[in-house]
Amino acid sequence: MSDTVTNSVVVPAREGRAVRVPAGHAVRVTDVDGTQVADTWAFCADDPVEHLSAQHTRAYNSRLFPQVGEPFVTNRRREILVLERDDSPGIHDMLMAACDAARYAGLGVEGWHASCEENLQNALAEHGITWGMAPQPVNLFMNIPVKPDSTLGWEPAPSRAGDSVVLRAKLDCIVAVSSCPQDIVVINGGDPTPILLEILEPADA
Amino acid sequence: MSDTVTNSVVVPAREGRAVRVPAGHAVRVTDVDGTQVADTWAFCADDPVEHLSAQHTRAYNSRLFPQVGEPFVTNRRREILVLERDDSPGIHDMLMAACDAARYAGLGVEGWHASCEENLQNALAEHGITWGMAPQPVNLFMNIPVKPDSTLGWEPAPSRAGDSVVLRAKLDCIVAVSSCPQDIVVINGGDPTPILLEILEPADA
Repeated sequence: MSDTVTNSVVVPAREGRAVRVPAGHAVRVTDVDGTQVADTWAFCADDPVEHLSAQHTRAYNSRLFPQVGEPFVTNRRREILVLERDDSPGIHDMLMAACDAARYAGLGVEGWHASCEENLQNALAEHGITWGMAPQPVNLFMNIPVKPDSTLGWEPAPSRAGDSVVLRAKLDCIVAVSSCPQDIVVINGGDPTPILLEILEPADA
Repeated sequence: MSDTVTNSVVVPAREGRAVRVPAGHAVRVTDVDGTQVADTWAFCADDPVEHLSAQHTRAYNSRLFPQVGEPFVTNRRREILVLERDDSPGIHDMLMAACDAARYAGLGVEGWHASCEENLQNALAEHGITWGMAPQPVNLFMNIPVKPDSTLGWEPAPSRAGDSVVLRAKLDCIVAVSSCPQDIVVINGGDPTPILLEILEPADA
C-alpha cells in the first residue's frame, strides 16, 4: 500500500510556505511547471535551533549531496530527513546561499525584490518561529555544476513539469520551502513558478 | 615596506584562540609543524551576528573556495576578509563542519574529546561573544578532495612546517582559530600540532 496524501499546500511563485511533518511522515516536493528551484529548510519542531545542516550532512555522507536513501542531518548530527525518492533528473544543490536583498542589490535591482530569505522568515513566522538568518538551504532542482577547476556554474533547473522528490522525516519537523523568485540569473529559466508540497502519511500509520 | 607584526598568539594543539583584527590589518595563520588543519571563523566586532558565511562566499565568487585576491563575505554579503597570500600548497576546505562531540561519538569515542566546536565557543567567550552553534568553518590546510562523482575524501593536510596564509580584514573583526584536535580520521596526520596567529599592521598605518 502506498502513502496517503493528508495535506497539500501550493507554494505560489516567488513565495514561501512551511508545513509541519511528523516523524514517519514525508513531504513530496513537486516542481509544478518545471525549471523551478525550491529552496528547502527543515527545523526540529520542538527546538528549532536544531535544524537541517548542510555542512554536517556533507560530512555525514562524505558527499556534496545525499543520494537516494541517504539522510540529511542536523547541526547535532541527528538524521532529520531522508531523500527517499527522486523522480527528477537528480540535479540538486547544497552549496549556494538563499537569495536575499543584498543579492538583488548586487545584481542591480533597485528597491524591493522578493527573496528566498524573506520567504523563509515569513513562512517560519506563521509557525511562531524566529530565525535571524537563513541556514544553507537544500536547493532542490537547482543546477550548480561543480567544475574540475572548482568554479561553480549557474544553470537552468533541468526539472520538468511534475518532477518531484520525497523527503521522509525522521524527527518531527517544520519544513519550509521557497519558490525561488530569482528572475535575473537563469536558474529558474527567467520565469518563477509554483511548487507543490504534499504531506504523505505512511500506509501503516 | 612590509607589514609589522604587532601581536602573536600560539594556538596550542587541540585548542582554540580568537584575536581582534582591525580593518586594514591582517592575520597570518601558520601551520607550525605541518599537516595541521586550522578551523577558522570571523565575526564582525561590532555585531557578531554578522559573520563570515561560506554559503554566501561560494555564491559571491562562484567558486568552492576563494582564490588569492578574492574575498570571504558575510551573511550580509559584505567583504570581511580577503585571501591575500597563500604560502602553502593551496589546498583548503569550506565544505566540512567543525568536529564536535557528536562527531567523536560517531567515531566511537567514549567520554570527552576536544573539538573545534567547543574550542570556538571557548575562544569567543574570551571576547564576551556567545554563539549557539558553529558556522561552517574555513578549514585552512584541510584536504577534502571533491571527486568527479561528488564524493568527498578525507586526506592528510599537505601543508609543511611554516606554511601560511594571510587574511586581510576589510571589516573590524574577531578571527577565531582552532588547532583541529582530530586524531582518529587522518586529516592531521594522526598528531594534532599548534597553529601560530600573527596580526600584521600595514606599513602605511
